[in-house]
Amino acid sequence: MAKKKAVAKKKSAVKAVKNTAFGQCGITTTIPNKYYLVAGHDEGMTPLNAFDNALVDAGIGNTNLMKMSSILPPNCTQIKPVKLPLGALIPVAYASKVSTIVGEVISAGVAIAIPQDPKLNGLIMEYSGAGHKEEIEKIVRSMAEEGMRKRGYKLKEIKSIAAQHKVDHTGAAYAAVVLWW
Amino acid sequence: MAKKKAVAKKKSAVKAVKNTAFGQCGITTTIPNKYYLVAGHDEGMTPLNAFDNALVDAGIGNTNLMKMSSILPPNCTQIKPVKLPLGALIPVAYASKVSTIVGEVISAGVAIAIPQDPKLNGLIMEYSGAGHKEEIEKIVRSMAEEGMRKRGYKLKEIKSIAAQHKVDHTGAAYAAVVLWW
Amino acid sequence: MAKKKAVAKKKSAVKAVKNTAFGQCGITTTIPNKYYLVAGHDEGMTPLNAFDNALVDAGIGNTNLMKMSSILPPNCTQIKPVKLPLGALIPVAYASKVSTIVGEVISAGVAIAIPQDPKLNGLIMEYSGAGHKEEIEKIVRSMAEEGMRKRGYKLKEIKSIAAQHKVDHTGAAYAAVVLWW
Repeated sequence: MAKKKAVAKKKSAVKAVKNTAFGQCGITTTIPNKYYLVAGHDEGMTPLNAFDNALVDAGIGNTNLMKMSSILPPNCTQIKPVKLPLGALIPVAYASKVSTIVGEVISAGVAIAIPQDPKLNGLIMEYSGAGHKEEIEKIVRSMAEEGMRKRGYKLKEIKSIAAQHKVDHTGAAYAAVVLWW
Repeated sequence: MAKKKAVAKKKSAVKAVKNTAFGQCGITTTIPNKYYLVAGHDEGMTPLNAFDNALVDAGIGNTNLMKMSSILPPNCTQIKPVKLPLGALIPVAYASKVSTIVGEVISAGVAIAIPQDPKLNGLIMEYSGAGHKEEIEKIVRSMAEEGMRKRGYKLKEIKSIAAQHKVDHTGAAYAAVVLWW
Repeated sequence: MAKKKAVAKKKSAVKAVKNTAFGQCGITTTIPNKYYLVAGHDEGMTPLNAFDNALVDAGIGNTNLMKMSSILPPNCTQIKPVKLPLGALIPVAYASKVSTIVGEVISAGVAIAIPQDPKLNGLIMEYSGAGHKEEIEKIVRSMAEEGMRKRGYKLKEIKSIAAQHKVDHTGAAYAAVVLWW
């Protein structure tokens, strides 16, 4: 009985920790276990404003994105885009393209290769450039596939997303994999 | 009485957590709630040394800066520059410019647009280039203003900082918003 | 006796915290206290695949690297390369060079200048370009030395690593300091 109480107390301490340490998580101390794909595009007053507006269009413009190279952790589950806490530190892998060439079509895409073995990691690839999103998405998917081959991982599937933009004066296209907890 | 003790115990557990987990915080698990602006400039033996020396001049040269895109979290309070722990992981939004064109004047600036509604996030913009710091600072302030307009946020105020450098052989200008806890 | 128990309880709470918060650490809340050097090189189907393959060759290709500017924290101990958790968020300082010029020799190197005073931080420098690794490594070591001089730190030693690659069609060279806990 005393033992039970001690266990209960320990559990409550752990819970307190979770509430404290993981309450409004930005970058947490553990490996991300959720992800989703987003893409967006827009014009802007300057190249950085166009980039910022594309982030807003993608639904992640009010967070602090921290770019990382580009692994999907094992047991990371796809979720629908969530409302991230404003200003939170968010690990992302992304591709972007900004152009000031009037009339140019630009695209940015990301692809995730997911292995058959759930204990292994997936691989995220990014690609952007002038061109239509179908081409860019096809290229980035083949890049992710190549990375799996190189690792000797058997491929289960590839997920991808891309955004396309026709430049009016200063435009940006953006695509990202958001990791989250 | 027993209840009081339990509460006290829980509080003490939480305090222990804080001391453990947030004792020497670099990147913590929560959203930053403090910020300050810094700027610096210097010459260097190589472009990266010039950049490093500008960081030292700005007072943040002995930390591990992690660049992020560029939001001021809600309820983030401006503080005076603090002595950051050596080697800590620090989220920053920054602009920098390095030049090896002898005699060129370069500048780097950052601006924060702060919304009227304290529940909303602010926006940080970065800009750098050849030119005097008054011009660069004016541009970056207008970029931050534009970002607020785009979000439909009512603007309370804009804070900004910029550094200027006249290149001797290899020079750098640097400006940053440091987020902290 | 009651006091002893209370202390034991507090310790156990702290231990619970550690297990929770630091269980599978990626970026933790504390300053990194371990480091090691790695380097790698390879060809790839695209520039990003070449980069990815160089990361795999360096032994850190299945993690999420977060680039930072470039300090060795005080009391950070060199360890042998460890098997990092798949998909973990890893702070690194790195140099890389990708080239599509057939036959070109490219190299990337990093150097750490370690101060005599163990309470002070070390400095990491990165350099890459066309050229053999001996040249690149010599340059990056002199850059790290210069950074120590600039800080007024007395130098204890410099550690460095570099990778070299002769481009077949699309090649990459990569060198990094991995920080860890």
